[in-house]
Amino acid sequence: MGIFEELKEIVGEENFSRREEELLAYSRDSSFFQETPICVVRPRTCDEVAGIVRLASEKRVPIIPRGAGTNPCGEVVGKAIVLDLSGMNRIIEVNERDMYAVVEPGVVRDELNRALERYGLFFPPDPASSRVATIGGMLANNSSGLHAVKYGTTQDYVLALEVVLPGGEVIETGTLARKSSSGYSLCRLFVGSEGTLGVITRATLRLLPIPEHRETVAFTIDSLDELKGVQEAVMALLPAAFEFMDEICLRVLAEKKGLKVEGGSGIIAVEFDGVRGEAEACAERLRGRFGEELGAGDIWEMRKTLVPSLASYSDKSPLAVTEDIGVPVSKAPDAIRRVKEIYGEAGFEVAVYGHLGDGNLHMRVFGEPAPELEHAADEVYAYVIDAGGTISSEHGIGRLRRRYMEAQHGPALELMKRIKQALDPMGIMNPGCML
Amino acid sequence: MGIFEELKEIVGEENFSRREEELLAYSRDSSFFQETPICVVRPRTCDEVAGIVRLASEKRVPIIPRGAGTNPCGEVVGKAIVLDLSGMNRIIEVNERDMYAVVEPGVVRDELNRALERYGLFFPPDPASSRVATIGGMLANNSSGLHAVKYGTTQDYVLALEVVLPGGEVIETGTLARKSSSGYSLCRLFVGSEGTLGVITRATLRLLPIPEHRETVAFTIDSLDELKGVQEAVMALLPAAFEFMDEICLRVLAEKKGLKVEGGSGIIAVEFDGVRGEAEACAERLRGRFGEELGAGDIWEMRKTLVPSLASYSDKSPLAVTEDIGVPVSKAPDAIRRVKEIYGEAGFEVAVYGHLGDGNLHMRVFGEPAPELEHAADEVYAYVIDAGGTISSEHGIGRLRRRYMEAQHGPALELMKRIKQALDPMGIMNPGCML
Repeated sequence: MGIFEELKEIVGEENFSRREEELLAYSRDSSFFQETPICVVRPRTCDEVAGIVRLASEKRVPIIPRGAGTNPCGEVVGKAIVLDLSGMNRIIEVNERDMYAVVEPGVVRDELNRALERYGLFFPPDPASSRVATIGGMLANNSSGLHAVKYGTTQDYVLALEVVLPGGEVIETGTLARKSSSGYSLCRLFVGSEGTLGVITRATLRLLPIPEHRETVAFTIDSLDELKGVQEAVMALLPAAFEFMDEICLRVLAEKKGLKVEGGSGIIAVEFDGVRGEAEACAERLRGRFGEELGAGDIWEMRKTLVPSLASYSDKSPLAVTEDIGVPVSKAPDAIRRVKEIYGEAGFEVAVYGHLGDGNLHMRVFGEPAPELEHAADEVYAYVIDAGGTISSEHGIGRLRRRYMEAQHGPALELMKRIKQALDPMGIMNPGCML
Repeated sequence: MGIFEELKEIVGEENFSRREEELLAYSRDSSFFQETPICVVRPRTCDEVAGIVRLASEKRVPIIPRGAGTNPCGEVVGKAIVLDLSGMNRIIEVNERDMYAVVEPGVVRDELNRALERYGLFFPPDPASSRVATIGGMLANNSSGLHAVKYGTTQDYVLALEVVLPGGEVIETGTLARKSSSGYSLCRLFVGSEGTLGVITRATLRLLPIPEHRETVAFTIDSLDELKGVQEAVMALLPAAFEFMDEICLRVLAEKKGLKVEGGSGIIAVEFDGVRGEAEACAERLRGRFGEELGAGDIWEMRKTLVPSLASYSDKSPLAVTEDIGVPVSKAPDAIRRVKEIYGEAGFEVAVYGHLGDGNLHMRVFGEPAPELEHAADEVYAYVIDAGGTISSEHGIGRLRRRYMEAQHGPALELMKRIKQALDPMGIMNPGCML
């Protein structure tokens, strides 16, 4: 029996596909990578996943676990069996008293939080793609988003995982206790491993109580020189979100989204949450201190739709080149300036925005792919690594940034490869990704 | 040249020892294990550590990294080269704006915090042994302590590590950025690995601002039946510390430490920290609601010296058998009752105390080692695992709990062994510990 017949036997005819139009749909994620998969399977249970992975291992056929495909750096594109986990989307348990939820990997982030509302609980990590992003993808990536400055990243909310290893064995790791010093921290190893070490089939996520109140302050700055002062003032108040959008973003939002603003060279948006009085008091301490105050109502909505809005800024395409760098928090203002210099000198305009509260900057470069663009990107990454930062704060490595791993990690990259080899000796799990 | 001569060449004559009385001192930690090391070396630099480990690897001689030796489960006892890292105790950098410190592994936890005071910063994890415990030991163990309910554990404060691998290669892993999605989370793998995967020679630790105010409420409870209600009331107020001590502890503290109290079957001590008004308001909401209120002044001091105080409770020895279990928070009151039942039925008295805020319970059983005691311990561990908990919340596995790893981790234990094999193929790093 051929591998396709065996796969059909495992998941059922209706959950297997080699139809051309379907393979086309799975040939892309949100990056510019494109490669047609061998076939697509949609398992419904951990047993089915284990059967598929065992088969792939026996036949030495590559396999790529996939959630919603929102990743911008080519984490789930390749000539492989694509394992679409979006159908494994049950919320298995919500434990109100101990504040955790047990979920399958295909659960969509915002749907989880809607289900948690009635318990007064929430799962904090919130990527911009949260309307469609799956928990499995967020785990694979160690996603974070707007609220990481206060709440941390996905890895901080993982109590336990069920994982199908590359040979098809199923393990459970972690506990329901809040803290443990028993054995190696395997949960943390799988989180952020981009589908290269196994397939997560169930996750136990720590939850938090929904804050009583949220309060937003948004204002313009007149010049990038103000950023250091603004950052110090805001960080001292322990914000729940602290965003920056540069002059290009500001102009795009004014033109396309009707943001009412009279000039300025950037937007700052800050959120405080917690007890009502405290959040209001923190916001009050910022009001009137800086540039023109903006209506807070739509600013978060605008921030979430910023990337598509930027498409119409220029007749040149907005390219995601060095789109997710991270530096020590206090270096973020310098990094914004340096990124603009580097791309400017290479003849490109760049829109910079991102999480000023945790030093994570996103950007879009306007232009066409060219050697000068690549050189500029190399220079940005070299600057970031030299500053003690990271080539990716929350989007991951995928196929896009793989060639910078050596510069970032040095001899530690060899160790990552040894771990990969120990867990996946056949090299079937998402080959070409990250390592 | 023999291995001892080569070791002397690396660290210098004065930092090498095979003197009988010194080997005796290093033959124990704070557990009941005892085994004489082959020799002791006291390196001063990462290069020296790398040289020692390379040599041990070539000669296939076991090696055990050691801090202050405060571990209660036999993590640093064995017939091996003991690598005493307590002399590598420099605080290399404190970065006030980005709130991190770069330290060597021999820095003592309380000394670090004293040095950080002038910056208004602190490193939150605080084991009871914090006066002597080293950062290296805390990392090896994923230590936590009284404030983990609010502040989490050591792993939550590790930005970057320098590690000497078992072959003698030196890697750096992690970044200075607050969050990263670049590669596998090696920091988290080394934290809690009990010296079995390499030697940490430098750590970059995230720090927090010292809270403006701390407020304590302590009171007695009349019966263990009150615990659930107390727990719900306290947890809703987000405490910074939330401790329980049972009736035996209470009697010991009353007799030996002069605690003024009129009966009761346990003590609750709660701390709130943060903005003054908020902390005071939280404390106020607890006052007068439960049993007799205790003077807050000495309660934390008493809690920290509880273990030695228990030595004088009975003519039987206080034994650390199942001394560090963790269960989901809401199950802690049941776990206290169950532990007392299990040991009681086996004919032993047990004093139970610990972190009611994160479900981590400590205990001392009064008696002599006996088969019934081991059976009772097996039953406690089985109960803990069945409750979704952990056989060690903060003390680690060492040599003491190694035989329960299979019951706790199932097939995941095999995966841990594969990782160990990949990193330490010669098996020289702390053999006999954990795995």
